[in-house]
Amino acid sequence: MTELQLDKPLLEATDRAGAANRERFAGLGLFVLNLMSGPGAGKTSLLERTVERLAGELRVGVIEGDIEGRADAERLARLGAPVTQINTHGACHLDPRPVMEAAEGLSLPDLDLLVIENVGNLVCPAEFDVGESGRAMLLSVPEGHDKPAKYPLMFRTADALLINKLDLLEMCDFDVDAAVHDARALNPALDVFQVSCRTGEGIDGWIDWLRSRVAAARGGRS
Amino acid sequence: MTELQLDKPLLEATDRAGAANRERFAGLGLFVLNLMSGPGAGKTSLLERTVERLAGELRVGVIEGDIEGRADAERLARLGAPVTQINTHGACHLDPRPVMEAAEGLSLPDLDLLVIENVGNLVCPAEFDVGESGRAMLLSVPEGHDKPAKYPLMFRTADALLINKLDLLEMCDFDVDAAVHDARALNPALDVFQVSCRTGEGIDGWIDWLRSRVAAARGGRS
Repeated sequence: MTELQLDKPLLEATDRAGAANRERFAGLGLFVLNLMSGPGAGKTSLLERTVERLAGELRVGVIEGDIEGRADAERLARLGAPVTQINTHGACHLDPRPVMEAAEGLSLPDLDLLVIENVGNLVCPAEFDVGESGRAMLLSVPEGHDKPAKYPLMFRTADALLINKLDLLEMCDFDVDAAVHDARALNPALDVFQVSCRTGEGIDGWIDWLRSRVAAARGGRS
Repeated sequence: MTELQLDKPLLEATDRAGAANRERFAGLGLFVLNLMSGPGAGKTSLLERTVERLAGELRVGVIEGDIEGRADAERLARLGAPVTQINTHGACHLDPRPVMEAAEGLSLPDLDLLVIENVGNLVCPAEFDVGESGRAMLLSVPEGHDKPAKYPLMFRTADALLINKLDLLEMCDFDVDAAVHDARALNPALDVFQVSCRTGEGIDGWIDWLRSRVAAARGGRS
């Protein structure tokens, strides 16, 4: 009980900072995506595909969240995307204040879409509002179809689920129907895409989803 | 800074509880393994292989840590292993006090080896001492060889690293030498096993490692 009482003011301050970020992003008509998954599910590969596919059409900025290192930021910078690195130095998720500091370094009025790649963790990032307009999560085929039941908050709070590494389906005991069924039992409104970032399979539907979200955010500019 | 000051007494209490668990386990001459990885890297599959291989030789008990559900505990109970489930209901790691409560339900004096399967998370469980005698972690091939640099604490604090899903090596861009090199740069004493829980490849070395740890803990009985 003591633990909860001590943490409550900090959590409330974090929520206020998240709400302030959301207001700032909405004022710019910018769609901000919080991209989450466990380690190695393919967040950066999806971002590479996304940046390549939207080149010349939408201006995509990226905030890379990692505990240490900047390897992913370098992968995306090579594609010409404006990217800022946040290193959490041990922390298991991104907080809204460093996210806004990083975002302000990206010349926000020049962007159509800002993607925040969160720390690879299927648990903690789901608990923290960084002020995003929407949430997408990846579940990769080798991780197994039993993950919705085990990590319910992430599936419950996502707007889109990408089932990635579909090219490994024949090598793994992954039941796509069971994964989709269990995820939608937690979150009936979840949009689901079956993709392979390696082969490009299924990426079209994902890109269309992003286009529609970017257009809606532009229309709602305050 | 406020955050650190608030959390410090709680962390110290957790550390004391971990140390108390370790003393209790040592008094029983019991080797207690804290088994950790990201989601879906194969902890439960490794445990199934381990229980099967040690049947009739060592008495293995299991504490299953999950946020929700008891599917993994049921998998292990089917193999005849005494198993207790801890559901953290949202928490991202196991704490030492619920671990001891669960352990006391397992008739500890009858066991040779107790395995604690932690919550699937490559970040937070590494920060919490549950009183284990040793730590093993899994990194699965589809997750990528770049994980040591990104999640250094887990690799730094492990005694054994199992590189799992070796059967998927040809389908993935995973450089085994780079993974081992980067992990050992963080932790030169790390024992590394290349395994496939699906095919059984490499499991012999892992079982020998466990046997030697169990024998050493028995010898050190206080």
